[in-house]
Amino acid sequence: MILILGAKGYVGRRFLTYLNERGLKAVSVSRSDVDYGHTESLRKLLRDRRPDFVINAAGFTGKPNVDACESAKADTLTGNAVLPLRIAEACAAEKVTWGHISSGCIYQGNRGLDEDGAPLGFRETDTPNFSFASGHCSFYSGTKALAEQVLKDAPNLYIWRLRVPFEGRDNPRNYLSKLLNYQRLLDVRNSLSHLDDFVASCWATMERRTPFGIYNVTNPGSVTTREVVEMIRAEGERRRKKGDTFSADRMAKNFDFFESEAEFMQKAAIAHRSSCVLDTTKAEEFKLPLRPVHQALEESLHNWEWAPSEP
Amino acid sequence: MILILGAKGYVGRRFLTYLNERGLKAVSVSRSDVDYGHTESLRKLLRDRRPDFVINAAGFTGKPNVDACESAKADTLTGNAVLPLRIAEACAAEKVTWGHISSGCIYQGNRGLDEDGAPLGFRETDTPNFSFASGHCSFYSGTKALAEQVLKDAPNLYIWRLRVPFEGRDNPRNYLSKLLNYQRLLDVRNSLSHLDDFVASCWATMERRTPFGIYNVTNPGSVTTREVVEMIRAEGERRRKKGDTFSADRMAKNFDFFESEAEFMQKAAIAHRSSCVLDTTKAEEFKLPLRPVHQALEESLHNWEWAPSEP
Repeated sequence: MILILGAKGYVGRRFLTYLNERGLKAVSVSRSDVDYGHTESLRKLLRDRRPDFVINAAGFTGKPNVDACESAKADTLTGNAVLPLRIAEACAAEKVTWGHISSGCIYQGNRGLDEDGAPLGFRETDTPNFSFASGHCSFYSGTKALAEQVLKDAPNLYIWRLRVPFEGRDNPRNYLSKLLNYQRLLDVRNSLSHLDDFVASCWATMERRTPFGIYNVTNPGSVTTREVVEMIRAEGERRRKKGDTFSADRMAKNFDFFESEAEFMQKAAIAHRSSCVLDTTKAEEFKLPLRPVHQALEESLHNWEWAPSEP
Repeated sequence: MILILGAKGYVGRRFLTYLNERGLKAVSVSRSDVDYGHTESLRKLLRDRRPDFVINAAGFTGKPNVDACESAKADTLTGNAVLPLRIAEACAAEKVTWGHISSGCIYQGNRGLDEDGAPLGFRETDTPNFSFASGHCSFYSGTKALAEQVLKDAPNLYIWRLRVPFEGRDNPRNYLSKLLNYQRLLDVRNSLSHLDDFVASCWATMERRTPFGIYNVTNPGSVTTREVVEMIRAEGERRRKKGDTFSADRMAKNFDFFESEAEFMQKAAIAHRSSCVLDTTKAEEFKLPLRPVHQALEESLHNWEWAPSEP
């Protein structure tokens, strides 16, 4: 049996669905079931339920976006650092294997360029450069990096780094939906995680008992915002030819870009955003089911399903 | 009216006594009065009580010592970083001036030597070098440094750095009591805070409305453990001459030292300890009532009162 904390969130819910669809017993643990604020409550939960695995998909990400973390620092630190530390203490004491959803947003930029001029991604072993320790970060990123720093010695733990989730289903948390809905965009280069690939890959590490530790769980490669916008436009044209004018019109919208990050920060944001490239050599070595990022994006757009409109 | 959080602790209790003795209305706020875990509860408390000042003397220091923080990381982070952030959010929203008790333990060593070979202390503006950011620290020190880093932009806030409290009254938290009771000692150089001097100085900044920000509130100068042991021995001899053999015997105990910090870490400690010299130029400029450390130590020993023995 697998206990999932944070199973009401975008990522946790997908873990629940994925595992249940595979015939595994996955159970949501909510704050009404257990007091997240005490290690002893978590330990008791583990003793009572005796899970094979715990997945921590809980966290404080800020609504509508990461800027909200800047004005709710106490909640952000509690959700993203204190809670994982409590789970670590409880799981270590009760000898339970667990996984923690971390984030690639603890890096900024890339690790340099290769001989062909392509950006090199940050590896699992590279020290975060968008963290409290580096002196430049969003508060959200700072708390995620702090959790990783403190958890690195925890036993029986998988740390899975998610980065900008996307998929073929319209959702306010889906990167593609954001591009389709935001007024203006910032052109940056990022590694991304297809949500289903991410969940399947995380579970693969756990199921196959790969070595504990950190995994960059992003689709191999990286893309710029403009590249993704071009893919959306191309999908719109394809749909227009098929007579799907509803999709075609929405995908042919006027994508407007900020002129610079400075303009973006001045007009639209409070917290600096991470944009970064992650190295996926380790994920590839372990043959985690991650499609190349361009393929995963194209397939998501090809199968794109709009969310029902607000009534 | 002054609200004190953590007024049951060694330092908070002294604030309460000090302020009440001066005819000021100081009130203890405990976890049974208000849920520390929600900013909104703290805001409601501030709206209901309308304090002139809030003093945060709450924190998680570990019992019997800082090693306990290494195995209770979630509680340590909550007590020393999340709680001050919550208070900051509540005080900013309700426009209340407040003071936070920080620690000099976010530094290690000294800032170099002056031309006479005397150690230079760390100033309020120096970046902590015993912190998560520096990569080497105890977990306790890491959380205290993190709180300072995040609080540095908070409005209406005094950050008072305490360092190794001592006084003339025997108490398990009193540095002099520790020296008298520990089996073996580590010879290091430290700045120290006489507890009554500390409380009077903190209040002086608040009462006089000195500029907000960080203050090193330690007695000017620094001492080594061996120097303090020699002062205890001298006081023992003085008391023997006066016929106080009870004190004389206890103060003449065999003070045994670890040969090195390596031996100390191997045999007696889990967490690395901070030992450091702080610069008190700022405190002296504002004429805070801090006696030179050697004087404060001698007077404490001269007036030494033993705690009642355990029954």
